[in-house]
Parts: sequence; structure tokens; C-alpha cells
Amino acid sequence: MNTADLGLPVDVPSTALFTDQYELTMLQAALKAGTAHRHSVFEVFTRRLPSGRRYGVVAGTGRVLDAVENFRFDADVLRFLRERGIVDEPTLEWLAGYRFTGDIWGYPEGEVYFPGSPVMRVEGSFAECVLLETVILSILNHDSAIAAAASRMTAAAGDRPLIEMGARRTHELAAVAASRAAYIGGFASTSDLAAGFRYNIPTVGTSAHAFTLLHDRERDAFQAQVDSLGRGTTLLVDTYDVAEAVRAAVEVAGPELGAVRIDSGDLLLVAHRVRQQLDELGAHDTRIIVTSDLDEYAIASLAAAPVDAYGVGTQLVTGSGHPTCSMVYKLVARAASERPSAPVVPVAKRSTGGKTSLGGRKWAARRLDEDGVAEAEVVGTADVPPALAGRQLLVELVKGGEVVGREPLDVVRERHAAARAGLPMSATQLSRGEPVIPTEYVHLASGS
Amino acid sequence: MNTADLGLPVDVPSTALFTDQYELTMLQAALKAGTAHRHSVFEVFTRRLPSGRRYGVVAGTGRVLDAVENFRFDADVLRFLRERGIVDEPTLEWLAGYRFTGDIWGYPEGEVYFPGSPVMRVEGSFAECVLLETVILSILNHDSAIAAAASRMTAAAGDRPLIEMGARRTHELAAVAASRAAYIGGFASTSDLAAGFRYNIPTVGTSAHAFTLLHDRERDAFQAQVDSLGRGTTLLVDTYDVAEAVRAAVEVAGPELGAVRIDSGDLLLVAHRVRQQLDELGAHDTRIIVTSDLDEYAIASLAAAPVDAYGVGTQLVTGSGHPTCSMVYKLVARAASERPSAPVVPVAKRSTGGKTSLGGRKWAARRLDEDGVAEAEVVGTADVPPALAGRQLLVELVKGGEVVGREPLDVVRERHAAARAGLPMSATQLSRGEPVIPTEYVHLASGS
Repeated sequence: MNTADLGLPVDVPSTALFTDQYELTMLQAALKAGTAHRHSVFEVFTRRLPSGRRYGVVAGTGRVLDAVENFRFDADVLRFLRERGIVDEPTLEWLAGYRFTGDIWGYPEGEVYFPGSPVMRVEGSFAECVLLETVILSILNHDSAIAAAASRMTAAAGDRPLIEMGARRTHELAAVAASRAAYIGGFASTSDLAAGFRYNIPTVGTSAHAFTLLHDRERDAFQAQVDSLGRGTTLLVDTYDVAEAVRAAVEVAGPELGAVRIDSGDLLLVAHRVRQQLDELGAHDTRIIVTSDLDEYAIASLAAAPVDAYGVGTQLVTGSGHPTCSMVYKLVARAASERPSAPVVPVAKRSTGGKTSLGGRKWAARRLDEDGVAEAEVVGTADVPPALAGRQLLVELVKGGEVVGREPLDVVRERHAAARAGLPMSATQLSRGEPVIPTEYVHLASGS
Repeated sequence: MNTADLGLPVDVPSTALFTDQYELTMLQAALKAGTAHRHSVFEVFTRRLPSGRRYGVVAGTGRVLDAVENFRFDADVLRFLRERGIVDEPTLEWLAGYRFTGDIWGYPEGEVYFPGSPVMRVEGSFAECVLLETVILSILNHDSAIAAAASRMTAAAGDRPLIEMGARRTHELAAVAASRAAYIGGFASTSDLAAGFRYNIPTVGTSAHAFTLLHDRERDAFQAQVDSLGRGTTLLVDTYDVAEAVRAAVEVAGPELGAVRIDSGDLLLVAHRVRQQLDELGAHDTRIIVTSDLDEYAIASLAAAPVDAYGVGTQLVTGSGHPTCSMVYKLVARAASERPSAPVVPVAKRSTGGKTSLGGRKWAARRLDEDGVAEAEVVGTADVPPALAGRQLLVELVKGGEVVGREPLDVVRERHAAARAGLPMSATQLSRGEPVIPTEYVHLASGS
């Protein structure tokens, strides 16, 4: 489903200004020099995973496709660029007609990745490709960071559902993308209505402490909530005394009470006490939801506690210690000259100071062991070895400027679950470690 | 200046869905119970600063005012809420006519804050105030986190200008807000064109390694850039060999070359070598800009290096280790009943598990010592002591639903510089420590 036509408030009509100024000044200089139309290959990759992480999760691809489609320079934007003197008139004229006409390949969204994985490849003229750098990196670096944290959390939670509720801890539109990335990583639902509106993610929510405080007695608040939302609602029981609140909750709603939520205190201890109390009151089916500054470690530590669902906020939307990825967008090959028939040659930075990269257009494949478990990420520039031909990772996303790789979010979510399940068991260990499979380079041309 | 009418792409027509679902279900239950219209006072505050930080920076206030003004439930939004069954028909009817009619006071944007500082107060009916919780916290928690990091970086940089260039490391719209917050914190400019468009922040940028790699020789790239952008441009000199690049750069541009940029390697060492080489080539006025994974500590470590400007990306937009604040939005007082004449009584969560807060509508003032330096953040609920009456911190932002507190970003930026300068000297130490002034509570009514 193309949800872009669901409309505002989270759509933006043009993404052309989500761009660093130097993309435009490079364009201007290259147009003048006559080099702007050299056929070029840019690749997105990361040199390392966040410290201690075992795998990365590609997320944001669908949003990249939306951004590329909507990357146009309309009159307001051109007027801004002209008035600020950011680029010259020939460049403005070129921008007025801009639309991406090249090709984009990439790891399908939800797939896992490792250091050196060419997660996206953008190919076309230098001019049309260089402009997309900033917005592509913004989306992939943010969304992949959130999805990676989400994936660790869902692995830690096992079969128990996770609710994304971090909107208040991040930028209001980053929150919508975070809900989307969390869903890809296996979260069941979100508190964020905009994420429900824009991406059709299930939304949940019942009440906060303010609702209890609004009423003269806690019991009045519970009664008001049950009267309006039904006995299946979730009552928040830690505004005053938890034991009194649980008693009042079951008295008001009966044993059909849907759930109680605990948002503070020693969750392990309180969950055990509340479960015992609920059972004594006959509310055996009333669930316990916990929601207090959880991360993957806290979730794992509650595995033996009688908890039915987790709500996660801050640590999800901040990537659980790693709020961004270090993906870069590098020119790896370009035509040797302006002639249409010019061969495409690999290029790469090669100063001694670091940040070097590997030139050449790359393929990637995941090699499996005899049990079908991933054992290496194989990256190369020459021909794909026949044994790996069926395990190639990059898929076509944009062909001649037309988006061909859009897919429903549930497909992406299922792909992530399958990709993670295909890694060695230690992938989902929470302890710090190396990438769970190594990256191997084969037949790789040297830089430049 | 109201920049909201500058238009898209970063505006959104409605902010009503940047809201957690429970705000709406609480509204529904309170409408049914008859308690929704109790006069209520909500306050935004934080219980602690990020670990080791000496002060916080209020940022996002101007964006909150835009969000409150645009918080409307239009037909598309109401249809979504109805189709998903999120709230009932009486609630949808109430939402259709929603606009905030209450009052908002707050610390002026750019001001510093401390644990317990009531940085914003929202007052009106429970119904109209509770709905604003999520979007207000999203904005203040994100923007204040970035501004605090920016402020530490500008303090470390002294008189040298800082360029914000982190767009590619965060969500594309969070990036725009981050540029704004960085500017408040004292940054001089941004690479992000959308931030220039939306907030009139100066934008800068010239070229990346891809531009050098596009050309057959580094010298060709430099020539192309100088031909198009002029001798005052900034040439990136670390694609291959830095010393060769500096020589070529000055040969191409002459000693009028504006600047060279170094983006990798041992910046301290390389900057010294490049300065010496530039001076030997007669390019005494050519500046050196460094831009490689800088944070406030790296900036401080380069204080003695011949560096003229810093570009900061990742660590700025991720809050330099603290990508969010822990601001909360709490009901602190509400009418004792539905009667219009009912007294407003303080309320507060008081379970033993933590997260308790202090009830009552609060004022705040900053007490100065005899040298005019801040010595305490004073917070109270009763009358303001006469000695502090002239030092009160909260200002009126919204009056009866009308925004009255909008102000130009340069005013906010200057306010931050003045507020920081008014703190004890140790405020800008980078070493970890306690809040630089204590928060004192006076005449404070006990919760509920």
C-alpha cells in the first residue's frame, strides 16, 4: 500500500531542502566544469556497528523511496536559494527540472547488515545522485538506529508484546519514524496517533497519573475510566498505594479487568505482588503491563516476572545508547570522462588519516553454513561466485527514476524476524561482542 | 517575526496527532464523568539534569507556540479517530471544536534551568490541557537536549565559530529543529538548507570528498570549485595527501584562498602542519576548518591548535551523549469540583515507588549573590518573597489561547548567552559535576 496519499500531517510535499548546502555548491561547480553528468555510483555503508552490537537492522528504506519521489525544487524553494545566493542561475535552472532518473538498489528493508554491507546503491549522473546524500543518510541513520534497538528489545521480550511509547522523548516527527522502525523491529503497537495515521500501526493507550489526580478519589477515576472505556481497559495502579489501587480496580471492574499498569518502583517485586493479589481477587486473566524506563536489559531481567507486556519509551527512541548509525554515502565509481561510452572506474578516498573506503560497485551475499545459518557477509566487486548467486542481498528499489521496491510494512516486519532468526544464536545475546558474522571481501578492486 | 507563514516543506498544518492515544481516552472518560472541565494546572519540569551536566537550556518554546496554534482536529484526523474506534462520538464532537483557550507561562526560550525548575506551566480545563502533553514534551525534550550540548560546545570553542552539520545523523525534520536549537546555543551557522529556509539561520557549505573523486585529479577539482565558487571558498584537503593538497589549493586559488577543511586524521597535528605550510606559502589569511566527529571535549582539546572554525555533526544532533531530557508534564493543581467557583487545590503522585512530584502552581526566581552571579534557583508555591519579585523567571507565552510570547530567534540566542554568563564560572567546566546552583524550595505546600 502506498500510504503517501493518506495525506498530512506527517507528509511533506518536498524533501529537497533536507539537504546540506554543499550538495548544491558541488553541483554548481560540477555543472560549470562539465563533470556533473559523469555516470556515478554512490554506496551507503557503515565502517562499524555501534560498540558491542552484534548486527544492524536496515530501516527507513520505504521512507527513502518517499523522499526520492518528493525531491523537487518548487518555486518557493528556488526563490529561497536565489535570494540567499546559495547557487547561481544556471544551477537554479537545472534544479527547477530536477527529478531523479537513476537506479537505486539496496538491502531490502528489515534485513540485517554488518560492517561494510552496501546497504544502498544509488546510480546515475553525479549531479542527480549527489543531491540525495543528506536526506538518504538522515533517514537510514535514524530509522536503522531505532530498529536495531527495537530488535534487541523484542528478542529480550520473547513472546511478550512491546508497546512503543517514546513520542514525548524525541522530536515529534522523529517519533513517527521511530514508531515505524520499532514496528519493523517487532514491536506490537505504539502510543503515537500520528504513527497510526501515517503507517497504519496499531495504537494503544488508556490513562496517565493525571487522570487519577483529576478525580477526588482514585476509585472515582477508575470508575470513570471503566464506565467510559469498559472493563477491558488498563488501570494505572501506582499513583498512591499499589495494593489499595489493585483492590479498588478489581472492585470497580470485576475480574474481567483487562490489565493493570505499573509505572514506577521495583518492577520485579511489584509485579510479583500484584500478580498474587490479582489472583487472590479472582482476576486471573487481568494482565500486568510495566512501563518505567525500560531497555533491553531491564526487559530481560523481568523474564521470570509475571509481566504480560512492556511499554518502552526513552530507550527505544534514543536507540538504547546508540541514537544514530554511522552510515556514510560515498562515491565508489564514476565514468572516466564525459563521453557516454566512458568506462566506469572505481574511486576511493585514500588519505592516511582514516575514513578510507573501498572503491567499486559492490554486490553482497550472505553465505550459510550446512545448517542454513548465516556464517559470513560476503562483499565483492567482480563477478558473484556461483555458489552465492542465489543468496544476493541487494534488490531493485528504483528503476530509471520510478519506485519499484515499495512494500507493506508487515512484509518488512516479517522479513526482519526471519533475517534475525537466520543468524547464529549469539546474535541476540545482550552482552557486548563483535558482529555475529564476519564480513569477507572477495575479488575486490583496490581504491581508485 | 512569525515564520510559520514561510510555508512548507517543514511546516505541518496540524499538530493534533503528535499525541499519545491515552490523552484522548482520558479526555473521553473525563467528558463522560463530568470532570473534564475542572480547571487544571500542568507543569513541565525535570527531576534531574543528565548525569554530570551543570545546567540545562530551555529550547523549543517557539516551536511549542507554533504547535499549540496548529493543534486542530480537521476532517481527516477525525475520520481516522472514528474509523479506528479510538474515541466515541461525543469526544469526536468535542475535538472538532478544539482550540486551546487557556494560558501558558514558561521560562523564556534560551534561559537556563535546573532540577525542579517549572520551565512551562499550562493552565485551563483538564480537557484542553491534557491533550497538549505529548507534543509539548516532544519539542522541549528534543530541542533542550540539543541546545544543552550546543551550549557546552560553544563554551569550549570560545570565540571560534561553530558550524552545525549533523543533518545526516538524525531524522530529517529533527535535523531542522536541531539546527534551530544549536543556533540558540550559540552556533554560528548550519549546513541544513531547510533550517535556513524555515528559521533564517545562516547556511554554509562548499564540497565533500565525492567532488574531488569525481574529477581526474585533485587539482582539477580544486580548479573547478574555485572557478565556480571563487577564491574565498573552502577546499577539502584530505582526500589523498594533505600536504600535496594544500600546495595545490594555494597554487590554484592563490593566497586569497578562503579556507581549507580537514575532515580526518589527528586534527591537532594536522592543523599545526597545515598552518605552517599555509604560512610558508603566504596564505596567512587562509583559515583552517576542522570537522571530524567533534564533541565539546575534542573542541576544547584543540583550543591551542591553529583552528579557525569547527564543524560539528553527530555529537550535536545526538545531544553529546544525552539525546533527550527527562522533562515531564504533570498535573500539579486542579479545581476541587466542577463548580466554576471551586478552589484550585494542589495534587501530586505520592506512591512509594518513586516519580513523586510536588503539588501546587509554582513560581521560580533566580537569586543572585552580591556580585550579581546566580547562587540559587528558588521555587515556591506561596507568595513570592519581595527580594525575589524582580528576579522571577516565568513569562507569559499564551494568554486566553492567543500566543503573546513569540520572539525572534536572535533574541533567544542572546538571552542564552547572557543567562549562561550569569552563572558561576564552573558552569562551563566540561568535567562532570552537580548542577552549578542548587534548587531551593520555599513555602511549598505538600502534595495533595
